[in-house]
Amino acid sequence: MIRWVGFDADDTLWQSQSYFDAAQEAYEQILSRYLDVADDRVHAHLLETERRNVRFFGYGAKGMILSMLEAAVALTEERISGADVRHILELGMDVLQHPVELLPGAREAVEQVARHYEIVLITKGDLHHQERKVAESGLNTLFHHIEIVSEKDPPTYARLFAEFGCAAEEFAMVGNSLRSDIEPVIELGGWGVHVPHDRLWAMEAEHGVDPDHPRLRVVEDRAQVLEALRGFAN
Amino acid sequence: MIRWVGFDADDTLWQSQSYFDAAQEAYEQILSRYLDVADDRVHAHLLETERRNVRFFGYGAKGMILSMLEAAVALTEERISGADVRHILELGMDVLQHPVELLPGAREAVEQVARHYEIVLITKGDLHHQERKVAESGLNTLFHHIEIVSEKDPPTYARLFAEFGCAAEEFAMVGNSLRSDIEPVIELGGWGVHVPHDRLWAMEAEHGVDPDHPRLRVVEDRAQVLEALRGFAN
Repeated sequence: MIRWVGFDADDTLWQSQSYFDAAQEAYEQILSRYLDVADDRVHAHLLETERRNVRFFGYGAKGMILSMLEAAVALTEERISGADVRHILELGMDVLQHPVELLPGAREAVEQVARHYEIVLITKGDLHHQERKVAESGLNTLFHHIEIVSEKDPPTYARLFAEFGCAAEEFAMVGNSLRSDIEPVIELGGWGVHVPHDRLWAMEAEHGVDPDHPRLRVVEDRAQVLEALRGFAN
Repeated sequence: MIRWVGFDADDTLWQSQSYFDAAQEAYEQILSRYLDVADDRVHAHLLETERRNVRFFGYGAKGMILSMLEAAVALTEERISGADVRHILELGMDVLQHPVELLPGAREAVEQVARHYEIVLITKGDLHHQERKVAESGLNTLFHHIEIVSEKDPPTYARLFAEFGCAAEEFAMVGNSLRSDIEPVIELGGWGVHVPHDRLWAMEAEHGVDPDHPRLRVVEDRAQVLEALRGFAN
């Protein structure tokens, strides 16, 4: 029944959020020299700024840094120094330049699934950054299609299904984000294998997936992805 | 012989560089309060910064603003004020939010060509920003494929030809940039229709196209694009 399997990339196949988290911690460290960061206001204000800007910036490191700079100017009431602006810009460069670190069992899971299904990679964020990571991962040659999209919502998945020539019922998505990888695919009639990661961006935490949905499986280990996919047939 | 025609978007179908130029003029205006901008150093330094950063940022407005901020901190020796950091961030928002302004005859040219060839849109830059512009242009429904790419070089065009299922000899590209739209396509064996625009980003000005190449036509008016394409058959 399932013929196509999509894999998310960031925090499903390789580390990503940890680099963003490190940048955010360093950013809060910088701002702590200007104001009291203990009250969570800095954290909440950045998330609010990112949420407001995402419809202009899209997802990814460049938008995060632009939001950090905007938030830093606002929270410090324009007292942020030129040196600290440079520090924040450097945090962005760190995120954009980090080497790709595959998660345990990622390559094996992709290879196993590729023996039974047509597989595609579907990731969102900065086009250029994602392309570099896909190439560096060494996994790019395993996939039939690599799709870098600006949003992972039902219209985007529907467009991809049309492009692949598969029905939603023939498609399963494997990913760490219930919001981006699982919810829209299940909504369209497809299947989801959720592989949780211990780090999740706050904006990805908002979703309405029923944890007992019959077309959803949760696996703790990438080695169980193929088994979960085959389990859907029963 | 030609079956597929690709259209560039920015400054081929709609205005783009004028918004980037306006942002850059405003940026130089801001910096003029810190240093003497008359000696072209500000202009040259920004281009240098963008050139160095493009392999991490890719093309587009977000990268331009990050490069502007980096250059502003460096040129002012960290004296740039928080208020001016905010002004520079706002310049970026202006570029990201401007309405799409079609160039004269753009829609008609696309419609004419669509009656005789399979047509595709091929544009580079920030994925999210480009998608918004494509949707807002109202031209999106005319194209068989819409491809937003991170670089317009021979490997990218070769990948797209494989995806379209067309040989290079069957493909012509219509665009304002000899470097991005014409040179790589001709190099692969395809055809080019150059539609110059009076504004061109300095980085796009570098190319090695022979102006008398037999597979190249230059037209001053979008209404002549179809004629130029048909002329290649003779």
